[in-house]
Amino acid sequence: MSNKDRYFMQRAIDLSRKGMQSNEGGPFGAVVVKDGKIIAEGNNCVTSTNDPTAHAEVVAIRNACKKLNAFQLDGCTIYTSCEPCPMCLGAIYWARPEKLFYACSKQDAAEIGFDDAFIYKELNLAIPDRTLKTVQLMNKEGKEVFEEWATKTDKVKY
Amino acid sequence: MSNKDRYFMQRAIDLSRKGMQSNEGGPFGAVVVKDGKIIAEGNNCVTSTNDPTAHAEVVAIRNACKKLNAFQLDGCTIYTSCEPCPMCLGAIYWARPEKLFYACSKQDAAEIGFDDAFIYKELNLAIPDRTLKTVQLMNKEGKEVFEEWATKTDKVKY
Repeated sequence: MSNKDRYFMQRAIDLSRKGMQSNEGGPFGAVVVKDGKIIAEGNNCVTSTNDPTAHAEVVAIRNACKKLNAFQLDGCTIYTSCEPCPMCLGAIYWARPEKLFYACSKQDAAEIGFDDAFIYKELNLAIPDRTLKTVQLMNKEGKEVFEEWATKTDKVKY
Repeated sequence: MSNKDRYFMQRAIDLSRKGMQSNEGGPFGAVVVKDGKIIAEGNNCVTSTNDPTAHAEVVAIRNACKKLNAFQLDGCTIYTSCEPCPMCLGAIYWARPEKLFYACSKQDAAEIGFDDAFIYKELNLAIPDRTLKTVQLMNKEGKEVFEEWATKTDKVKY
């Protein structure tokens, strides 16, 4: 671990504490680093902003992309105070940073009541076996739009 | 499939087409329904808003929660034009709606270049085996904040 790594992770942890103490949300913080500098920060704001997607990593990614005017985090590193939940890990894969550091594990999170494990497990179940009742309908109508996308000439891929 | 289900899914599909045609993002749309009425809508806006998390479901969930002044979608149903990616499915589990309908499958999405399958696969790998380089550090310092959360008396759980 380099001194820089320690510095950036300490900042993510400081954000996790600050957000918790000010009742913005759960005890989670994250920063996005590019070229040796923090370009964006985030902490969990789920309960204070009524946004279930406002996890620290998602907030930091949104802020970083806004700053970079880009929908990808090329050459960036994310430091997060806790191993990402499936939503955040999905968001990180879509944002495509170079590297990810985390401090607490998902087991640590489960111990204080954040049971990502349930969501990880559900994602792996076949649709009929999931707790969330999930039904497919109108596949034909939906696919017509996909076919338009396939032949669209001015699309921006992501 | 009821007439209402058909109506709501058609709206999600219409949003997927509209967003694509206006170059807001990929061909995906979603609506949130409560008490037999659409309370919020969304379509993919990743490339037009530089937000990699602005998938249709995430946008619709954020809008619905804002409308309900709540961080959960109690009693709501989500209609989405495509089976959710891991990020969106994670967001849906955190939002806790009652039911989910989808039109296109993730295989349909892969066929037009949206390979959620890669992300689903990565989520299941042990951390050292993932494509995204991921390293744990400062676990002790991170966990100190979790211990504060555990004993915090005025926390809002979610």
